[in-house]
Amino acid sequence: MAKIIAINAGSSSLKFQLFDMPSEEVITKGLIERIGLNDSIFNIVVNGEKIKEVADIPDHAVAVKLILEKLTGLGIIQSLNEIEGIGHRVVHGGEEFSDSVLITDDILKRIEELSDLAPLHNPANITGIKAFQQVLPNVPAIAVFDTAFHQTMPESAYLYSLPYEYYKDFGIRKYGFHGTSHKYVSQRAAEMLGRPLEQLRLISCHLGNGASIAAIEGGKSLDTSMGFTPLAGVTMGTRSGNIDPALIPFIMEKTNKTADEVLDVLNKKSGMLAVSGFSSDLRDIEIQASEGNDRAKLALEVFAGRIHKYIGSYAARMCGVDAIIFTAGIGENSDVIRARVLRGLEFMGVYWDPSLNKVRGEEAFINYPHSPVKVMIIPTDEEVMIARDVVRLSK
Amino acid sequence: MAKIIAINAGSSSLKFQLFDMPSEEVITKGLIERIGLNDSIFNIVVNGEKIKEVADIPDHAVAVKLILEKLTGLGIIQSLNEIEGIGHRVVHGGEEFSDSVLITDDILKRIEELSDLAPLHNPANITGIKAFQQVLPNVPAIAVFDTAFHQTMPESAYLYSLPYEYYKDFGIRKYGFHGTSHKYVSQRAAEMLGRPLEQLRLISCHLGNGASIAAIEGGKSLDTSMGFTPLAGVTMGTRSGNIDPALIPFIMEKTNKTADEVLDVLNKKSGMLAVSGFSSDLRDIEIQASEGNDRAKLALEVFAGRIHKYIGSYAARMCGVDAIIFTAGIGENSDVIRARVLRGLEFMGVYWDPSLNKVRGEEAFINYPHSPVKVMIIPTDEEVMIARDVVRLSK
Repeated sequence: MAKIIAINAGSSSLKFQLFDMPSEEVITKGLIERIGLNDSIFNIVVNGEKIKEVADIPDHAVAVKLILEKLTGLGIIQSLNEIEGIGHRVVHGGEEFSDSVLITDDILKRIEELSDLAPLHNPANITGIKAFQQVLPNVPAIAVFDTAFHQTMPESAYLYSLPYEYYKDFGIRKYGFHGTSHKYVSQRAAEMLGRPLEQLRLISCHLGNGASIAAIEGGKSLDTSMGFTPLAGVTMGTRSGNIDPALIPFIMEKTNKTADEVLDVLNKKSGMLAVSGFSSDLRDIEIQASEGNDRAKLALEVFAGRIHKYIGSYAARMCGVDAIIFTAGIGENSDVIRARVLRGLEFMGVYWDPSLNKVRGEEAFINYPHSPVKVMIIPTDEEVMIARDVVRLSK
Repeated sequence: MAKIIAINAGSSSLKFQLFDMPSEEVITKGLIERIGLNDSIFNIVVNGEKIKEVADIPDHAVAVKLILEKLTGLGIIQSLNEIEGIGHRVVHGGEEFSDSVLITDDILKRIEELSDLAPLHNPANITGIKAFQQVLPNVPAIAVFDTAFHQTMPESAYLYSLPYEYYKDFGIRKYGFHGTSHKYVSQRAAEMLGRPLEQLRLISCHLGNGASIAAIEGGKSLDTSMGFTPLAGVTMGTRSGNIDPALIPFIMEKTNKTADEVLDVLNKKSGMLAVSGFSSDLRDIEIQASEGNDRAKLALEVFAGRIHKYIGSYAARMCGVDAIIFTAGIGENSDVIRARVLRGLEFMGVYWDPSLNKVRGEEAFINYPHSPVKVMIIPTDEEVMIARDVVRLSK
């Protein structure tokens, strides 16, 4: 019985999940927050019980040591030797990585070189990789990229209509993100439908604080709404999604901001937060909307309306669709958003049942039995995908 | 019999078309180029014959005088008194103008104030208005706005997911353009279909060197692909259309350009010109593609693919579509683009006949008779719309 640990390292956080493989049982999971700040917080779930401790955690290596001490100290594992592989989520794999990969010195160097494309994310992911290298130098480590699944997009989908040398010289193209999630739900959808993935046209809606839609044909991503960065596509919690690009110089001039400052507004002060005027959290917005707040209603309409249009767009892209999938926090839990997204898609064969739509956070079909297009809720599980790739690639 | 002149003034050009109303017969039309430059060129069509002269035309007022001299001198009209109204195309009407309007001093001032939103276009349009005021001060003049038709868009369509004060303080929202064209073809489509416009859901594809798509329900624009400026939406001749907004700061940093310089690249050096690498002219690209040029093929695929996806998106927006309309230079003439745009839309009821698709530049249905969704080619006529509005508003 191999134990595999899946890691998602942010700049001041580290999420982990320990799997027993191949059973895919989650043995434990946890989160360390405020690494390098005062009052770091260590959260771990043991036998279904949440334990929370304040600790002094100056860097990621200390965080990793603490995790491993807890795993043995709490009797979750007997010895560190039981950990046979480590999987690291890495946001950006550029064009180099169309699959997960065993991390070598050379690979790590190449991931570091890609930090240019993901300056906010890859350096944090690399910190996590290095912390584990220090503490468990002999355990194979695998990098699992958010972008890898979308590397099957054809050139006509990933190329912007910009000077070609921008692509050649600077790597400017659509990469897409949430790939591990889109891949997981597409595979799970095929299982739930009892049909070969190779024969399916799927539209996957990953709707969380970040949100992206993907067109997946025969198990391959053909197009996705995020772009060069995770800013593009639909309206999100605090991100604008697509806007007229001419607005950036206009906003710079009007507000006397630099381009980077405007970008910061687009990433952190836009989206549903800006439209609603009070929150980026869909749950708050739904409550206010139900109480009659017009800006809250507008935020729901803007968010859901754009997803709705992407579904039409991606159905056209694949000459039709066999199933629409909702996943991630909002996709799994918000019947309000799902209802609005699905409203009026009968023209393309989508017939869904409002009474089935009430479900929250569990796998379900919400279409009428006769509906040519199936509508599915599938809680995502990026961690199990990481664990599976560790098993596959660390042999 | 009233004679009405329709004017489209650019920064160094002036297009005119003289109508007999209400017959809508075009009596003559012409174009003056290189106003204020050396070797200005005066083109006019008289009795189907093209006349071209080189002249010294220092400004728009001189251009207008020359037009009027020619109209009488060539015997096209007997006296300037026959001209009972003038219609001016104005690009940007902001939120103020949801219809054409009789130009008064106050109205002209308000159009001038909107130049902030359309610095390249409104000042040129205003120059044309003032030139006619000098020469024909007592003839009623009407402004016809490219944006007016789209003022019916709901807030959820026109509002960007940006800080709300950007909308309130700076007028940042989606305006949409080509409105006069989208309005003309939607009205004409209803006539050709023999159905009330009020009952129709139409997708209008205005495809020229600039290109925009509109979702028109019951004769009202619900959404359109252009945005705050005509840069947004689909790939165009030299314009990028939508890109990840985060690319602007990235390109600035990589190329050491200012935001305005990057915007200039996006407007003038992107689009099909950039993807093909050799031309913004679709006719050149089609020829090269047919000879096997891969970048030319890619440009066609990128251009048509994005339009195809907008059709799916707008069908979803209207819960289905009754007719798809192609207009403007490319839409009216390119069977190659139409074929690629329409390919694989059977899932939403679009069945089109390749043999009928060969038509160029004339009104036609190209769907199979049994197709639930009709597909129509309708040459646009913005000038007749201007002339009609002059008759309606100058009474």
